[in-house]
Amino acid sequence: MSMCSCKIDKEVNEECGIFAITKTDDSDIDVVGENYYALYALQHRGQESCGITVNDDGVFTTIKGVGLVPDVLTPEKMAKMPKGKMAIGHVRYAPKSQIDAVNAQPMVVRHAKGTLALAANCALVNALELRQEMQQQGTFFQTTNDAETMAYLIARKRLETHSIEEALALALERFEGAYSLVIMSPTKVIAARDPQGFKPLCIGKLKGGYIFASETCALNAVGAEFIRDVKAGEIVEIVNNELIVYREGVQPKGLCVFEYVYTARPDSVIEGCSVHRARRRAGELLAKAHPVEADVVIGAPDSGLDAAQGYALESGIPYGVGLLKNRYIGRTFIQPVQSQRENSVKIKLNPITETILGKRVVLVDDSVVRGTTSERVVRLLKEAGAAEVHLRITSPPFKYLCYFGTDIGKPEDLMANRMPIEDMAAAMGADSIGFLSLEDTKKMASGICQDYCVGCFSGEYPIDVSKAHMVDKFDEKIKEIK
Amino acid sequence: MSMCSCKIDKEVNEECGIFAITKTDDSDIDVVGENYYALYALQHRGQESCGITVNDDGVFTTIKGVGLVPDVLTPEKMAKMPKGKMAIGHVRYAPKSQIDAVNAQPMVVRHAKGTLALAANCALVNALELRQEMQQQGTFFQTTNDAETMAYLIARKRLETHSIEEALALALERFEGAYSLVIMSPTKVIAARDPQGFKPLCIGKLKGGYIFASETCALNAVGAEFIRDVKAGEIVEIVNNELIVYREGVQPKGLCVFEYVYTARPDSVIEGCSVHRARRRAGELLAKAHPVEADVVIGAPDSGLDAAQGYALESGIPYGVGLLKNRYIGRTFIQPVQSQRENSVKIKLNPITETILGKRVVLVDDSVVRGTTSERVVRLLKEAGAAEVHLRITSPPFKYLCYFGTDIGKPEDLMANRMPIEDMAAAMGADSIGFLSLEDTKKMASGICQDYCVGCFSGEYPIDVSKAHMVDKFDEKIKEIK
Amino acid sequence: MSMCSCKIDKEVNEECGIFAITKTDDSDIDVVGENYYALYALQHRGQESCGITVNDDGVFTTIKGVGLVPDVLTPEKMAKMPKGKMAIGHVRYAPKSQIDAVNAQPMVVRHAKGTLALAANCALVNALELRQEMQQQGTFFQTTNDAETMAYLIARKRLETHSIEEALALALERFEGAYSLVIMSPTKVIAARDPQGFKPLCIGKLKGGYIFASETCALNAVGAEFIRDVKAGEIVEIVNNELIVYREGVQPKGLCVFEYVYTARPDSVIEGCSVHRARRRAGELLAKAHPVEADVVIGAPDSGLDAAQGYALESGIPYGVGLLKNRYIGRTFIQPVQSQRENSVKIKLNPITETILGKRVVLVDDSVVRGTTSERVVRLLKEAGAAEVHLRITSPPFKYLCYFGTDIGKPEDLMANRMPIEDMAAAMGADSIGFLSLEDTKKMASGICQDYCVGCFSGEYPIDVSKAHMVDKFDEKIKEIK
Amino acid sequence: MSMCSCKIDKEVNEECGIFAITKTDDSDIDVVGENYYALYALQHRGQESCGITVNDDGVFTTIKGVGLVPDVLTPEKMAKMPKGKMAIGHVRYAPKSQIDAVNAQPMVVRHAKGTLALAANCALVNALELRQEMQQQGTFFQTTNDAETMAYLIARKRLETHSIEEALALALERFEGAYSLVIMSPTKVIAARDPQGFKPLCIGKLKGGYIFASETCALNAVGAEFIRDVKAGEIVEIVNNELIVYREGVQPKGLCVFEYVYTARPDSVIEGCSVHRARRRAGELLAKAHPVEADVVIGAPDSGLDAAQGYALESGIPYGVGLLKNRYIGRTFIQPVQSQRENSVKIKLNPITETILGKRVVLVDDSVVRGTTSERVVRLLKEAGAAEVHLRITSPPFKYLCYFGTDIGKPEDLMANRMPIEDMAAAMGADSIGFLSLEDTKKMASGICQDYCVGCFSGEYPIDVSKAHMVDKFDEKIKEIK
Repeated sequence: MSMCSCKIDKEVNEECGIFAITKTDDSDIDVVGENYYALYALQHRGQESCGITVNDDGVFTTIKGVGLVPDVLTPEKMAKMPKGKMAIGHVRYAPKSQIDAVNAQPMVVRHAKGTLALAANCALVNALELRQEMQQQGTFFQTTNDAETMAYLIARKRLETHSIEEALALALERFEGAYSLVIMSPTKVIAARDPQGFKPLCIGKLKGGYIFASETCALNAVGAEFIRDVKAGEIVEIVNNELIVYREGVQPKGLCVFEYVYTARPDSVIEGCSVHRARRRAGELLAKAHPVEADVVIGAPDSGLDAAQGYALESGIPYGVGLLKNRYIGRTFIQPVQSQRENSVKIKLNPITETILGKRVVLVDDSVVRGTTSERVVRLLKEAGAAEVHLRITSPPFKYLCYFGTDIGKPEDLMANRMPIEDMAAAMGADSIGFLSLEDTKKMASGICQDYCVGCFSGEYPIDVSKAHMVDKFDEKIKEIK
Repeated sequence: MSMCSCKIDKEVNEECGIFAITKTDDSDIDVVGENYYALYALQHRGQESCGITVNDDGVFTTIKGVGLVPDVLTPEKMAKMPKGKMAIGHVRYAPKSQIDAVNAQPMVVRHAKGTLALAANCALVNALELRQEMQQQGTFFQTTNDAETMAYLIARKRLETHSIEEALALALERFEGAYSLVIMSPTKVIAARDPQGFKPLCIGKLKGGYIFASETCALNAVGAEFIRDVKAGEIVEIVNNELIVYREGVQPKGLCVFEYVYTARPDSVIEGCSVHRARRRAGELLAKAHPVEADVVIGAPDSGLDAAQGYALESGIPYGVGLLKNRYIGRTFIQPVQSQRENSVKIKLNPITETILGKRVVLVDDSVVRGTTSERVVRLLKEAGAAEVHLRITSPPFKYLCYFGTDIGKPEDLMANRMPIEDMAAAMGADSIGFLSLEDTKKMASGICQDYCVGCFSGEYPIDVSKAHMVDKFDEKIKEIK
Repeated sequence: MSMCSCKIDKEVNEECGIFAITKTDDSDIDVVGENYYALYALQHRGQESCGITVNDDGVFTTIKGVGLVPDVLTPEKMAKMPKGKMAIGHVRYAPKSQIDAVNAQPMVVRHAKGTLALAANCALVNALELRQEMQQQGTFFQTTNDAETMAYLIARKRLETHSIEEALALALERFEGAYSLVIMSPTKVIAARDPQGFKPLCIGKLKGGYIFASETCALNAVGAEFIRDVKAGEIVEIVNNELIVYREGVQPKGLCVFEYVYTARPDSVIEGCSVHRARRRAGELLAKAHPVEADVVIGAPDSGLDAAQGYALESGIPYGVGLLKNRYIGRTFIQPVQSQRENSVKIKLNPITETILGKRVVLVDDSVVRGTTSERVVRLLKEAGAAEVHLRITSPPFKYLCYFGTDIGKPEDLMANRMPIEDMAAAMGADSIGFLSLEDTKKMASGICQDYCVGCFSGEYPIDVSKAHMVDKFDEKIKEIK
Repeated sequence: MSMCSCKIDKEVNEECGIFAITKTDDSDIDVVGENYYALYALQHRGQESCGITVNDDGVFTTIKGVGLVPDVLTPEKMAKMPKGKMAIGHVRYAPKSQIDAVNAQPMVVRHAKGTLALAANCALVNALELRQEMQQQGTFFQTTNDAETMAYLIARKRLETHSIEEALALALERFEGAYSLVIMSPTKVIAARDPQGFKPLCIGKLKGGYIFASETCALNAVGAEFIRDVKAGEIVEIVNNELIVYREGVQPKGLCVFEYVYTARPDSVIEGCSVHRARRRAGELLAKAHPVEADVVIGAPDSGLDAAQGYALESGIPYGVGLLKNRYIGRTFIQPVQSQRENSVKIKLNPITETILGKRVVLVDDSVVRGTTSERVVRLLKEAGAAEVHLRITSPPFKYLCYFGTDIGKPEDLMANRMPIEDMAAAMGADSIGFLSLEDTKKMASGICQDYCVGCFSGEYPIDVSKAHMVDKFDEKIKEIK
């Protein structure tokens, strides 16, 4: 029932959140302040680093760094930010090896024709190719970030073209992969989404201003009205407080279905479907596909809670609160004593004996990755007196790499690759297990999109991923000790 | 459905959490490490400061400071802690004016006959009297903390007596008020609870060790078995890994009922009653006392969630998730832009339109203090499209001061003192309001205790509070700028 | 030629610096600001911790902590200090084991009759005795600091007396040892010096204010006029901007002669004798007592420089600059690589080849403790091409413990206790060595005082030190990890 | 007599320090540790930021940041540095607007053919031109630093050439201005100096290793033997522990004479002349040119002390110590109370009355910029009782901009541009003033170089500076709040 991002021992990490805001001259919107609140609302999409760039009459001022929104965008620093008419912001998920201030976004580039700032939720399969090509031409890279590759290519194209829109359109032709991005030039904010529409991106309107945001929850946070989603392949911009479509797009066919399963906030609406409703629906579909005799349905906090209610409703088994998450742990749980490692699930998650003791429990969770967390949770419930534990998972088993930003680890670590499904329940100490089928997973979001990217479950991706293996080969010849 | 401590714009703050652990010589229990986990589990009882003191063969080593458990008890500092056979720990709630490292507990006192450490969840009504008396006799005070008063009186009594138990018993005769405390001498750990039993305190057992803790959730965190609650007025100690009752106690008649309403964790069991169950029961009692025609019952996160399920069950109205709390905000929400103040509820709490739009909503919350938070939440729901909002509160209206540790502000700020109950719904924009009656509040916890302290609701307190007004008069002639 | 406190690998550490300032109601003196500048000027007397307490109409506000003056007394904290009519300040030298914020001064004590603050440059030989006595009577100690013992005894005496002066006089009767101190009560500032006058203390006057300070350099720093030194055994106070002698004193007979040799700043004047002049005189006396044929006289920075000029003048050998100290190192030199230890003298001190190459060098330094530093400096000069190096030391060899605040380490580590003087030159690689005789050392300061404490050289102390050995036995049963 | 860099209220700031070290495979030299010590010794050349890059088999690891050497290169970070066979380091002076971690050196560049690191003491007059040219070709700049311009041009040239040496030589043809630099490629360290030899650079040798350093004091710090200065226009490298001249150089004709006057450390030897000796000589020349009847000659600490001795020797007037600098202030003096501003000279500098009272004083200082500091020092001496104060300055009056790295502020602020020399003494309250003539200034360093850059005194520069005015126009369209 909640923010969906602090999962216990989360083994799936992903995504970034982006935001852009513009205002008219006479509006008193505080574009930096609103950006802050929006990033707070998008924090679940990335907790490693964050930043805001404001454009004050062509002067771009940035705060960015490693840490959560309130830790990086401190009142002291925010007070030094100039007022401006537009601003973009970013929260970033990053694999541990890339948590570094230099990788924080927005990327700001000074080029021969001016300045541009970029915030992107992106994963390019041809990043290394583009990078090497530009290096041959005398562009030097500071980061290991795809966003830098994108920003530099756009800036290079700008040198040869007459407008930022033209430059962007030319650059996008070269990008293969997933991206939702916002660009800020000295006078404009532009948004673009890849042709498959892997990552969400929506448009909102305030009195006297416009907004682009990864999720609608950021619109709510700033009191903006939802206009529509940016289309797949679309380039759309705000010029003089008017929303102008520079290049038409289409209905996405490659939206990452995991946005509904886990990534997005339940109070967001993506491509016309409430995430909360999608999860309840997943629970209902699970109940139909994998019924079981039981006394209580509980959810694994936080992302399993909505689906558990759906399962309960559909099955008629009462919904209960069986697991409590320690709200103080969040992302900061530190184990000071290594030998105590086993204890960590107990610290983070507490069973409510009242709900569980002597009961046959249906435990609804969003996914199984390595299986170790689920195993510990099942054991916790059994130790608290559950008579039976039936695992119900609101997605199919993970079997394949994601090339588009979701870091689920190496295929050989995935539980579904180490054993047949029928052995998984026993391996985790559960009495039964049921996964949502691929078909039902696609139905979860009520059919607004006609198709989704389900590559991590099926191994079939919406675009060619053959170049993607090269991505790991970015040289690590340059390191900085912070 | 959860930790109960990060309430939105929480206006009630209270309590402390205490913990003690002992082990036998040959046990490999890590008393410092377990203490850490236990304090994590008790964090909801106090977020201002915390600390641990370990006793290694008579040498007392302490880490304490201002901040949350992981911020104060860092791995670097924990690594410097000696092993030992016993340790005590504390998490402290403090009014803002007293948030200072010097006030953090455990209090450690070096006296002529040795050393003692104290961790107490306490509020004495005669603290000033005791303090002045000791000052006249040449004892000097460093803090504004009742725990220092207690520790010094115990230490002074120790000078005149032959044992720490005797000293403690003599000192306790002088303490008027609420306290659950643990004391560590060079060789023993002793626990005591005031004659009314205002504050919870329980006993647990590990293989090769014993535990005292404010709540049973701390026993779970370290894998200990629950033995029993310490009785009101009891003095009980661990000597050579044996549990010895030094002074008999009785069944509490003054336990703070607000422990069940708000303070304690739902997975704790206090005086034989699960807090989770008590809250569900409160919801059921509310549904009987204040029924209403509605489409959905939702809870105010986090402490209203259990009761909302009880209300739903009893009333037959479906339970729904209507409000999401931003998990990243917790206690650290900082508003960088003052003018945006109005926005803060929106940042912390998000309505799920799906659940609310066009619906008649029952909103279950634990209490109304000044009323401003409830008003904002009601408005949020209305803006999100709720057709009606019916407030149901799982406690009576606050009308009187608490002298025993719960800081609910000045009586004149309490909404129930500014208007009759019948006007409160309108003042908050709600369509109706219903409070749990005093009688039902006492029934919430299923009658295990025969009576409770309900002074903040009734103005009648279990002990004489006439000296308590002096407490505010502690001189503030000494300040330190940190 | 300079501040005398950053000696290279200094093996002698000592002392504290104290300061007090009062002003009339209508004066616009900033007592806190002036205190800051004064502590900066006294920084050489103690670099471990520092603090200021200001008295604003009876409310005592303190900033104190571990670190240098600008690190502890930051602009942010200083801005929060109230204005007031009087303030006292302290810089503290501390042995490493006692560097802790809790030991920083001023000590502020809240007692039954009010409040007092104390800043003391002190070393009591009967501290443990006093402490144990008070502990028996119910006084509890937070620190391992003699200043706390003094403050508590004064506060206890205050309970039995009618004035702070009376209390102070009674307490002083119990103090055996060295002390110069200032006390601030809600309405007065009082200064006192022990009967031998071990530590310096002087009185200054500003328009509309008075000052007590350890050295006259602090008077200069705030633009005050020197009035006179406080006498040994004197108690003197400022009441309503009048200087009142509460108890008469005498000419000191036990002033620590090492103040002239090393401790004090050259621009200070102590008991009528300029420290700069005393050092030049020491150089002249050395030249007479230990002449040598040489080409150049150089000083070991910083405290040997004045004396080197005196030696040069008297001997007719030219003065030269042969050693440069790296100004960036000060007290903060950190060796990141342990194996490089040998290098440290080279980093801190650089020979000027021009001055040294092929020359017979007289090197004037203030003292020899363990001998290791001198040995390294001699080697440095030889490696830089010195033909001969003749060590001339402006004090006698250290042979005995100091019980009055100067930490010269254990007697068995002192070079003079490990070998006869005639072997010391060879042991350090020098071509000859000459120490100032005890008689000449006493003459250095031109005979203003009739006698000095020279206990560390002679083993004969002005007072009985037999209880002093107990001081080390303060229990270490209480530790805090910071 | 000392480090020369902490001048009181220093109005001239300048320079950077560079260092490089290589070792053979079998040597146990710790290249990172030695680099640390060397930067400590070069700290006077730049206190704003610093850094080290070590090359461990082609992997470049860097620590850099804003602050002094021990603050940036902490033991914790140093411990994480890999061992390696070569390393380069840098200390940076920067105008306040450019103090930013991103501007810290070494600059490390990843290019299509590998990696290079650069540390440079540089000021290019055509930096903007080069930058714009590269921007047109798709190179993007992160800093406002000339070193980045240099590094990127070298890296671009590397793309078109077969060796780093060739690339460097081609790039150097484009650089107009002052530079001494070291470059590290995966296998080599290369040093180069501009054709005029504005900035010093020397070569040293260790057993099993080679060194390049800005000053010889860094050689001493690591125990290296001085080999020779790098020649003007020379490119010289270390390959397999052999010193190879890639391009021949010449004797410098444009060395900045201010290195002898103020910048360099007195124990360094530049182009065959000891800085200490040069300063004494300046004092002697001043005494001949501007004799005066006086009682004592004193130096303004620290850079006037050597010259004061020269003046005393030549004039026969006794040398004395008249001003003491507070060693704790250094660069960190912070004034917590704005109104006290006037006091700051008193805090930093203390007169020794003994030396000054009633005397006719010759005060030797290195330069006069705005004149405010000198005025305060003169006043200080007069207030301390000096009968007369005669200012003697070891350089000519500043009248013109320096385009090569020394920041002396705007021409209109220079005292020599606001009044004729004959009025300056009166303006500063001095009884007379005498400057070293341009001719004598060039003679100071004993004629080893045949000519110097004296542009700031004469307005005639060794190279065309007409493009230099553009340098200020680097856009400031990108800012980051740290």
